[in-house]
Amino acid sequence: MNAPVASTRMSEEETRELLCELLRLFYDRGWVSGTGGGICGTTPDGLMLLAPTGVHKERIQPPDFFVIDPRDGSVVKPAADPGLRPSECNSIFSAAIRERGAGSVVHSHALSSVLAADLAKGDSLEIRDLEMLKGIRDVTNRDVHLLPVITNTPREYELTEQVEKVLKEERFATANAILVRDHGAYIWGEDVWEAKRHTEVYHFLFEATVARDRS
Amino acid sequence: MNAPVASTRMSEEETRELLCELLRLFYDRGWVSGTGGGICGTTPDGLMLLAPTGVHKERIQPPDFFVIDPRDGSVVKPAADPGLRPSECNSIFSAAIRERGAGSVVHSHALSSVLAADLAKGDSLEIRDLEMLKGIRDVTNRDVHLLPVITNTPREYELTEQVEKVLKEERFATANAILVRDHGAYIWGEDVWEAKRHTEVYHFLFEATVARDRS
Amino acid sequence: MNAPVASTRMSEEETRELLCELLRLFYDRGWVSGTGGGICGTTPDGLMLLAPTGVHKERIQPPDFFVIDPRDGSVVKPAADPGLRPSECNSIFSAAIRERGAGSVVHSHALSSVLAADLAKGDSLEIRDLEMLKGIRDVTNRDVHLLPVITNTPREYELTEQVEKVLKEERFATANAILVRDHGAYIWGEDVWEAKRHTEVYHFLFEATVARDRS
Amino acid sequence: MNAPVASTRMSEEETRELLCELLRLFYDRGWVSGTGGGICGTTPDGLMLLAPTGVHKERIQPPDFFVIDPRDGSVVKPAADPGLRPSECNSIFSAAIRERGAGSVVHSHALSSVLAADLAKGDSLEIRDLEMLKGIRDVTNRDVHLLPVITNTPREYELTEQVEKVLKEERFATANAILVRDHGAYIWGEDVWEAKRHTEVYHFLFEATVARDRS
Repeated sequence: MNAPVASTRMSEEETRELLCELLRLFYDRGWVSGTGGGICGTTPDGLMLLAPTGVHKERIQPPDFFVIDPRDGSVVKPAADPGLRPSECNSIFSAAIRERGAGSVVHSHALSSVLAADLAKGDSLEIRDLEMLKGIRDVTNRDVHLLPVITNTPREYELTEQVEKVLKEERFATANAILVRDHGAYIWGEDVWEAKRHTEVYHFLFEATVARDRS
Repeated sequence: MNAPVASTRMSEEETRELLCELLRLFYDRGWVSGTGGGICGTTPDGLMLLAPTGVHKERIQPPDFFVIDPRDGSVVKPAADPGLRPSECNSIFSAAIRERGAGSVVHSHALSSVLAADLAKGDSLEIRDLEMLKGIRDVTNRDVHLLPVITNTPREYELTEQVEKVLKEERFATANAILVRDHGAYIWGEDVWEAKRHTEVYHFLFEATVARDRS
Repeated sequence: MNAPVASTRMSEEETRELLCELLRLFYDRGWVSGTGGGICGTTPDGLMLLAPTGVHKERIQPPDFFVIDPRDGSVVKPAADPGLRPSECNSIFSAAIRERGAGSVVHSHALSSVLAADLAKGDSLEIRDLEMLKGIRDVTNRDVHLLPVITNTPREYELTEQVEKVLKEERFATANAILVRDHGAYIWGEDVWEAKRHTEVYHFLFEATVARDRS
Repeated sequence: MNAPVASTRMSEEETRELLCELLRLFYDRGWVSGTGGGICGTTPDGLMLLAPTGVHKERIQPPDFFVIDPRDGSVVKPAADPGLRPSECNSIFSAAIRERGAGSVVHSHALSSVLAADLAKGDSLEIRDLEMLKGIRDVTNRDVHLLPVITNTPREYELTEQVEKVLKEERFATANAILVRDHGAYIWGEDVWEAKRHTEVYHFLFEATVARDRS
């Protein structure tokens, strides 16, 4: 799908198709392999289109998404296939929509995100000295960009409390991503196209930070 | 091919096609290059569809599989082309089907599997502190996942005795993979889709374990 | 598009199509991800076709280019879509066209270019002992090839002064690329096909120089 | 193209098409980028189909090959396009055909081949302890496989003397490849399919040897 120039709102059907295309793209990059990772986007009505859990993400089709109310995570309309269940990312994605006005959230299982989280000092990671920082909304290449790094839990929904906490913290005001130790990252944007850009930019930043640490 | 939601049994023809598709996918990842590696799946009758030996794996076509009885490794029906011979993986794949109820087995020649086996302590490798462990059936992200690491032999069928031994060992009860030093890995699942998931997950685990060892 | 044998001038329409194809190719390599990077080519009339800013580069279409006068950077004809703005590379690309007779310039955001710039001694990087040096016009594999390395600035157009300075320096006479610390590289050729060759060659040289430094 | 089971001789036209396909495949792997590298195959008449020099290798078409007499390197029939010139690999490829009965030779510019040559002790590189060694004709996984490593020269044809010397050496009898320091590798097989297999296998061996050296 070609990127629109103006921030025209996509229809629900276009969003479903683009989310499937991005899952194939991210799968080819190794970011959502082994059924891991996930994605969501919002409809013109402010509802969330949520990918199902436990399936090979690159093979998801437009009717496979759940329609969710992000205010409380309730299922407004299930996926067409009754065998599908909604992703465990539900409560985390909903939090990013509510707290940050995200129009799309990507959950990455990329190795670079795990290795970047390994480099955290305490509960955050500093990223600096990279032009690609300008690819994050409202961030400049002179900024020291601070990302929250939270601790993994046995079940994904158990991360929600930590996620909600860091989303409210002033020191992470410009962060459009959260790293989860030993796990991956949540990355969002105000619409699906910005989420795609942020996803590519943050993976570059993770790779660069890891590579420089090993030089 | 799209992944089915329920664990509907695939027909023999669908299985042959999916096995070819996975070989092309794994070839693109560098896991079955240079005619190396292999794959099998089972038919609704419990027979094994086995890829041929010595051919470029990404170019295998549905009629190229041998139908094998996994109870004794005998050829029930040869490949359509009389010039083809069954893979040397026969006895190892048959053992995984018999001992573990595998519905599909992948033999990988990925570099990451060789480098992971280099890190073995004695006859096993511990994998830990990774969310992707949850991609293995019945494994949690808090487990220390123990994989058997066996010693390479001049001919592949000579590995069978070691394979049969470790498949019976209680300490490897949750392992769905065996590493072979200097060689690669055997990875299985209860059906072809689970074998695909396990194959992607284990390669991620190998890459992550190797990368962290070098940090 | 197939490469022409003789240096036949391409039509403006062919150039627009080839520039889009190269952006897709470089995107697949990770050189223009996250809307980063850029490209230009010249028309038979000596005008510059300049990609727009802030868009996903692999999705640019032939009508999306601006026609620019490289003598002063003025817009001769805007992109078909009124929502597009010309790339901030304008003044830098124009300088390479004026000072070096470039027929095409690529702006890369590849990680290897950032890591290569990290290895600079002072304001330059020496590349040596590689056959691929012969892929640069008028360079031999016995040369120590000296590339200028300039300092990043908050806005891209602010790099222009440094770019114009190094383009005139005798010690950089054979350089067809400029590295920008923490940022990437500008790489050019006398036409789009040579710019493609130089882009691939320089990325190989960056990767090789970085890999050898870490051996 | 599907690999034939039996070693049926391909027609000249099939060979031309397969050589083009392999160049696209190797380009995607980064082995013949920036117009570097090359390939040849032999016709049923024992003549050599030689790719042209100085062109983007992944864009070569079947009529672009020169027909060469490998006994003396003379051009029997030029490429269809009069602007093309035969590759400088001519005399080296001819030597491999004459001395080793090669039916196809690949010239790789892969970074892994350069880094592997860096690890040479004197004029050879030992490769050991890898199952993939069995992918080389007549080599076992217990062998210490010895590859010749020669010194780069300003012009490619100047390598011919060194190439002819090592091709005759008994200690390199099982080698189907020659490494050139700072440059790349020549890899051959008795036909195009074996050359493909050897090319993939040797690149795996180079990557594994380099990775283990850095562990």
